[in-house]
Amino acid sequence: MIVKTIQVAQNVLKANREIAERTRSTLDAAGILAVNLMASPGAGKTSLIERTIHALHGELRIGMINSDTSPASMDAARAEQAGAIAVHLDTAGRCHLDAGMVRDAIDGLPLAEIDLLFIENIGNLVCPASWQLGSHLNVLIASTPEGDDKPYKYPRMYSGVDAVVINKIDLLPHLDFDLQKFRRGVEDLNGGLMTFPLSCRSGEGLEQWYAWIASIAVRCPAMASQEN
Amino acid sequence: MIVKTIQVAQNVLKANREIAERTRSTLDAAGILAVNLMASPGAGKTSLIERTIHALHGELRIGMINSDTSPASMDAARAEQAGAIAVHLDTAGRCHLDAGMVRDAIDGLPLAEIDLLFIENIGNLVCPASWQLGSHLNVLIASTPEGDDKPYKYPRMYSGVDAVVINKIDLLPHLDFDLQKFRRGVEDLNGGLMTFPLSCRSGEGLEQWYAWIASIAVRCPAMASQEN
Repeated sequence: MIVKTIQVAQNVLKANREIAERTRSTLDAAGILAVNLMASPGAGKTSLIERTIHALHGELRIGMINSDTSPASMDAARAEQAGAIAVHLDTAGRCHLDAGMVRDAIDGLPLAEIDLLFIENIGNLVCPASWQLGSHLNVLIASTPEGDDKPYKYPRMYSGVDAVVINKIDLLPHLDFDLQKFRRGVEDLNGGLMTFPLSCRSGEGLEQWYAWIASIAVRCPAMASQEN
Repeated sequence: MIVKTIQVAQNVLKANREIAERTRSTLDAAGILAVNLMASPGAGKTSLIERTIHALHGELRIGMINSDTSPASMDAARAEQAGAIAVHLDTAGRCHLDAGMVRDAIDGLPLAEIDLLFIENIGNLVCPASWQLGSHLNVLIASTPEGDDKPYKYPRMYSGVDAVVINKIDLLPHLDFDLQKFRRGVEDLNGGLMTFPLSCRSGEGLEQWYAWIASIAVRCPAMASQEN
């Protein structure tokens, strides 16, 4: 029984990887940099996308694939209001995006009008780590109120990403969050990883994030690091 | 293909339910109230358990099944230091507890020495909602920094629980969190639900939570509401 289950899972992941590779080719041909944004619920994915759309307005044309486990599309509406081309994916209770969902969403987007595409994954620190989407960059948003132990407790997620945003640093005076402990945990799992301590609420630290994401998007999406 | 997948999932959930029912009988026979604690990562599951162990010391003998996606057992160690009988479940990357894991953990616990058993689920607002464990109560911990929109975005989780703890209310002056909007969202999904606004850090609001959980544990576990 167990052996069968593993085979099914492996086949599903292999099929997913093949779809992700085709998506990656489609995005490369269109000159689009795609960023898979992952985080716990409420860590600030939509806020970071909103802020980035405003900041890079006129420099980069931004698209967003928003996902939720329900039909509620509040986040896609927020991104559209901020000036992005947004589509909403209702996963009907599923706990992560997979490559097929992202491919379907991309089929509905005007690719020639987009330079930078944010794929907002389901708020979840476990399941999204296993599923390639075809993105060029995987970015994890941590949130200071979640605690400084998260790299130690969700090592798989922290190992597989290209950058970590540490959001809500405006709350640090009111929390027992040890930034050095957090950074050590990240460094042990994923040495030399880019980290961006910032606050989407106060604006502190956002300039570094904008500069990094714009530099990669402008330079060349195909030069972005390979998806793990 | 899709039909087959659904059948497999249904069989797995049916087998899970049967194990959960046997666990429930075992707990009832031992006079133990079991509470399945669910939340996003870092919402305060372990802190709430620690506080409760200290507060109810001498009144109730508390056990804890802690789970993590990795072998790290920091939380079980915290509960043991606080005076509980604790076991750690390493789910090896799996995103939720299931009834089989909980049964195995319970087999390793001295049931005659426990009145109240906390089952700390994996930090995840999606997957745990589908899996019965055999617990008497399902409690969800929300955390104010996650935002007031969570009941609207994770309706399945909020619909299936017996109480919601709203943790980190000490941070409210520093957040844009509308408690009334949050409560309306909960009420629409799960009318008349018990809610406990509190702070595990400042201690505010905890007395109500202690009183509620102790009143049910002392009265009779078998009288606790049926698991959904």
